[in-house]
Amino acid sequence: MIRVSVLYPHKEGARFDWAYYTAAHVQLIERTLRPALKALSIEQGLAGGPPGSPAPFVAIAHLTFDSVPAFQAAFGPHAQEIMADVLKYTTIQPILQISEVKLGS
Amino acid sequence: MIRVSVLYPHKEGARFDWAYYTAAHVQLIERTLRPALKALSIEQGLAGGPPGSPAPFVAIAHLTFDSVPAFQAAFGPHAQEIMADVLKYTTIQPILQISEVKLGS
Repeated sequence: MIRVSVLYPHKEGARFDWAYYTAAHVQLIERTLRPALKALSIEQGLAGGPPGSPAPFVAIAHLTFDSVPAFQAAFGPHAQEIMADVLKYTTIQPILQISEVKLGS
Repeated sequence: MIRVSVLYPHKEGARFDWAYYTAAHVQLIERTLRPALKALSIEQGLAGGPPGSPAPFVAIAHLTFDSVPAFQAAFGPHAQEIMADVLKYTTIQPILQISEVKLGS
């Protein structure tokens, strides 16, 4: 099982439209990546480690797939449409991480 | 539901002992933070977004709790012991993020 994490780093003055992200963008992700996409979670940053520090990431999305090829096969044909949609809700350039789930789920 | 994510940024030449991390450190976390800790997942970085790029994070751990106060009450008394143990498996300074789970689990 692999996880694709999309992390939006905190940036002073950056725009992030939560209403669009959690409705329209999530719908686009679900429509284009299911059924290869096995699970999706969306997290909103609350705080960092040091007391009073801002969350390092405004938002983090985790997408679970069976394997890297399964992700690539699902994402490839829709990559351009999904990337273009990101510009509609944020000025932040997200960081993409592909990980293997070693423990837990 | 909140999630505490511990992210270990990729750093050239850094040490990360996976055997210690996934056995001894995970055991310490389970022993000290259950039952407040509801779920734990450990991910190993495989790749970044751009083709051929390294994973931005060597490892990411996600710890799920009912609330921020529940996490603080569980973590506070063991913070020093847990932080000291980190030095045993890595030279990387982890990034801590506390998030609210908005969607999914």
